[in-house]
This record gives sequence, C-alpha cells and structure tokens, in this order.
Amino acid sequence: MIIHTVCFTLVHEPDSAAEAAFLEAARTTLPAIPGVHDFTVSRQVSSQSDFRFQFSMRFADQDAYAAYDAHPAHQGFVGTRWADEVASFQEFDFVPLPA
Amino acid sequence: MIIHTVCFTLVHEPDSAAEAAFLEAARTTLPAIPGVHDFTVSRQVSSQSDFRFQFSMRFADQDAYAAYDAHPAHQGFVGTRWADEVASFQEFDFVPLPA
Repeated sequence: MIIHTVCFTLVHEPDSAAEAAFLEAARTTLPAIPGVHDFTVSRQVSSQSDFRFQFSMRFADQDAYAAYDAHPAHQGFVGTRWADEVASFQEFDFVPLPA
Repeated sequence: MIIHTVCFTLVHEPDSAAEAAFLEAARTTLPAIPGVHDFTVSRQVSSQSDFRFQFSMRFADQDAYAAYDAHPAHQGFVGTRWADEVASFQEFDFVPLPA
C-alpha cells in the first residue's frame, strides 16, 4: 500500500471562484481513475508551511500508482489544469510501517 | 478534525539500531498521549523529497491538538529525543474538506 500526496498552492486568490473550480475539476477527474482509493482534498493549516491544500490518495501497490500516473485522465489534468494553475507544490509518498 | 503530520530525517544511519530505537520510542510515547488517534509511522518513499519518515496522527479538534502539544510526555519526547536525533523536518497539518 502506498499513499500518494501532494501539497500545493494555486495561482488563484484564496477562496476565489477559480480556486473552487480547480478543486472541483480535481474531484471530478482524479478519483474516477482506476486504482485511486480514498481521494481527499484537505486544507493545509500549519503555520509552518505556506502550502494551502493537499490531495491525498491510496494505491494498492506501486503498479497501481504507476498506472494512475500514466493514465490519460491524469496526464490531461496535469497538462490542462495543474501546469497553469499551481504556483508551487511538493510531493510526498508514504508507506505505513507495521505498528 | 485535524491531521497533524511531520516528515523528518534522522541523524542516524539508515536502517541502524539507533534509527529503530528512535521510532520505537515514538511508538511507545506518542500514541499514549490523550487525544492522539491513528498514530502512524510511515516511510517517505517519493524521490521528490529527501525526508525518510513521517509521523501522522489525528485529533478531534484544535483543542485536543493543543493539549497534546503541551503534554509533558510530548514535551519530554521533543526535548530528549527529537532535539538530538532529528536532522531536518517539516510539519504539515490537514483539515479534510467535505467531498
């Protein structure tokens, strides 16, 4: 199991219609891609970071993650929305350790 | 609900006994503090980041998070282990948005 996350800040004004439209496009597009589980949009609220949002999703394994990454719907979202509307971002991927 | 996370890298050699001892000390100490739910230790595996680990925990609300932060067991862990053994870290806190 692997949890893929990306923290990001948009070029749009906070709480603007453009911000909401970006998040809605992500919600419509990304969780529908095969292999994506538990897709979540969160606000990043720590004062220790300037990022405003996070996407998080779970994949069964690295192959499922790679298939998502290569999927035309993901590549399309990256090319048409992410590339133009994201000002900065940082990816982290997590594999939980046994307790 | 708020999810508190910290990505970090230790001063210890990867896969060393000292690394394992730090993670075990965290596992023994932090989830026992009142208000901490779903405490998880993960490996950070994205090549886009140099951090090697992440702690993640969930709190019911900001008050529960503040009580954890001020709790002597947390302050003790920070003072006796974290301050000496963590080489670098980045906190992020997340509030999931309604789907």
